[in-house]
Amino acid sequence: MIDLEAIGSRARTASRALAQCAAEQKNHALMLIAQALEIEHHIEAILSANAADIAAARAAGMAPALLDRMLLDRRRIAGIAADVRQVATLADPVGEEFDARERPNGLRIRKRRVPLGVIGVIYEARPNVTVDVAALCLKSGNAAILRGGKEITRSCAVLTSVIRQALHEAGLPDDAIQVIADPDRAYVEGLLRLDRFIDVIIPRGGAALHRFCREHATIPVITGGIGVCHAYVDPSADLSLVVPIIHNAKVQRPSVCNSLDTLLIHRAIAAAALPPIADALTASGVDVRADPAALAILGAGERSRGRVTAATTADFGTEFMALIVSVRVVDSLDEAIDHIVQYGSGHSEAVLAEDAAVIDTFVAAVDASAVFVNTSTRFNDGAELGLGAEIAVSTQKLHARGPMALQELTTFKWIVVGHGQVRG
Amino acid sequence: MIDLEAIGSRARTASRALAQCAAEQKNHALMLIAQALEIEHHIEAILSANAADIAAARAAGMAPALLDRMLLDRRRIAGIAADVRQVATLADPVGEEFDARERPNGLRIRKRRVPLGVIGVIYEARPNVTVDVAALCLKSGNAAILRGGKEITRSCAVLTSVIRQALHEAGLPDDAIQVIADPDRAYVEGLLRLDRFIDVIIPRGGAALHRFCREHATIPVITGGIGVCHAYVDPSADLSLVVPIIHNAKVQRPSVCNSLDTLLIHRAIAAAALPPIADALTASGVDVRADPAALAILGAGERSRGRVTAATTADFGTEFMALIVSVRVVDSLDEAIDHIVQYGSGHSEAVLAEDAAVIDTFVAAVDASAVFVNTSTRFNDGAELGLGAEIAVSTQKLHARGPMALQELTTFKWIVVGHGQVRG
Repeated sequence: MIDLEAIGSRARTASRALAQCAAEQKNHALMLIAQALEIEHHIEAILSANAADIAAARAAGMAPALLDRMLLDRRRIAGIAADVRQVATLADPVGEEFDARERPNGLRIRKRRVPLGVIGVIYEARPNVTVDVAALCLKSGNAAILRGGKEITRSCAVLTSVIRQALHEAGLPDDAIQVIADPDRAYVEGLLRLDRFIDVIIPRGGAALHRFCREHATIPVITGGIGVCHAYVDPSADLSLVVPIIHNAKVQRPSVCNSLDTLLIHRAIAAAALPPIADALTASGVDVRADPAALAILGAGERSRGRVTAATTADFGTEFMALIVSVRVVDSLDEAIDHIVQYGSGHSEAVLAEDAAVIDTFVAAVDASAVFVNTSTRFNDGAELGLGAEIAVSTQKLHARGPMALQELTTFKWIVVGHGQVRG
Repeated sequence: MIDLEAIGSRARTASRALAQCAAEQKNHALMLIAQALEIEHHIEAILSANAADIAAARAAGMAPALLDRMLLDRRRIAGIAADVRQVATLADPVGEEFDARERPNGLRIRKRRVPLGVIGVIYEARPNVTVDVAALCLKSGNAAILRGGKEITRSCAVLTSVIRQALHEAGLPDDAIQVIADPDRAYVEGLLRLDRFIDVIIPRGGAALHRFCREHATIPVITGGIGVCHAYVDPSADLSLVVPIIHNAKVQRPSVCNSLDTLLIHRAIAAAALPPIADALTASGVDVRADPAALAILGAGERSRGRVTAATTADFGTEFMALIVSVRVVDSLDEAIDHIVQYGSGHSEAVLAEDAAVIDTFVAAVDASAVFVNTSTRFNDGAELGLGAEIAVSTQKLHARGPMALQELTTFKWIVVGHGQVRG
């Protein structure tokens, strides 16, 4: 029986100490964590726990692709350690002061960036997330309470134990990182209601997890990660850019949230542009689900390593997470925008055009965390946009939108300095 | 029977138009709203509806102080109109671009400030909030769905009708401002679950309303407004500043969230500072609830227009909202900080000291939306801190902390401009 209140209280206490830590001490702890992940008996303990998780999941009938996401081997553990060292090299946002000003009454005002406090992270069967999240929370001065998928309980427990030992060696409170290592889902619900101790919940997983968190949390939840992404190809588009961008957005990593789902193409350019786009996509094994106008241009049937079929209504507004793309021919920019308003999830939307007025209208009208002009939606990513890391991609509008890294794990306090001013 | 889905959908549509409006058009609409509030037959309709609300509330036994908060008269309506004109003079945050940079691959990245979209505001029996909130939401390009306390349903309906007529005249969608003018509480619960259409819920009211929203909302909620506020008086404090600051923090407007609740005073200065503090407070009718050490200095009993009594444990951690203050003598700065950690609500905390090390430690250790040095907690207010307005004071840590004005009613979108870059 896990005492969530006690975990929360210890996290809150640890967060107070962590908030006062200098960057050097946090970086030292991160280096010790990376080193600990390279110690042979730690590696063996991690591999052994992971093997037990894998065996249980396989016995329970988990699909091979999901088993692979759960798997830790020596190479992957080395990669995780390298990622922790990378976080140590990033700038520490904590303590930065900004928006300084003086009021007419002489009050001197500024804001100081401070850690959020305690962050709850709920994720699925990916044990590497345990260490990634711990490193980002530590670096930004936050305590974290982690809850990995029930299938990786053993892996999470051992990884967290290694992290906590390193924290102890670094002179930081080991309760800065705690894990709920019990597969009982009731603990997830309990975690979501620990508002006395937890400042924010970050779910990392699919739509069902995000919905569950929104329904049950009394703590603010950063939702995100659901991407129904569109690209609109305007008649003014540079055709030499269109095929590589659409191909990259769909094919480079189809299983992630910023990959392309629906291509919207203007009727005036459809006959010229659709065939080479379809050639490139189907050569990479993509299934093209075409609306009637697109189908009339492409024809239904097998095509290279993919095929072209008639789209159904369910093919629009769907996050495919696979080598599938839907195509719709539109009569105008407005029709494309209306489609995105109706079907988009506010994640990543692209416009391919050379006409500046078309670009401006699209950028202004489309309500998404990131709008891409003549480039791939796949760039909606913390590392690619220059944040150096990423804990989540937010598709809500409060606090952070798009990729979230260290600064997005902080808040601020107002500091108001006077010499006896009172309010009249 | 009100169709909340239809209200939400209309608000979403209106928000798209509003997001594209120039500042001039929004300001014009605000001026028309202010003018409409000065037209005689509108004033008469507002007064008549308000009189009906007041009569019903009085018949239901509402306390005189609450009846006064509900009351609209010609002077108050003129004040509301003046506030709307004031909002028109504030800078429009929408469209500002920031964080521009170029990536090594040539991608040009920037962020653009955009409205949140649709804001749901749930408030209590204060009809003026209807217009205040509408003005701030409009100016920041957001549509709003309003739900005032059930006691002011008639007043809200008429005020909203006046606003919507003015919006129509200004060429803006009148569905930018909608009100749920039905006292049935089921509509509040329904509103809190309209996550398809509403981007954020801002409750304005007491702790019970905020808790209700956190419990029932599937939409992000900005909680705030609950202030258990402390002031710590250090031995290094300038005694000539202490009495006026403490008096101001407690007495100037005791019924609001940034007023002082608990005085923490260092033992080394208690004998010298407590008697003049108590004299000043009790002369203004304050009841002083003293811990044993403070009671030993002050003595129990009537004192001027107030009195001094022994504090109970319930007097610490309580938001009095009245002319009551609790006093505790502490042996150290750390004991003061520990008290604030245990009892504070993260709203406003003050330190009165001249010792720079004491100030630095207090400012760093206290986790609150605003920390005040040698000045009054009463300054935790949008106008006083230079924001020009205020829709709420946030005591949560996400998105906005402390006073929220126009900029806090916006989010941003990433704009990523390339010339064919794809992700490798």
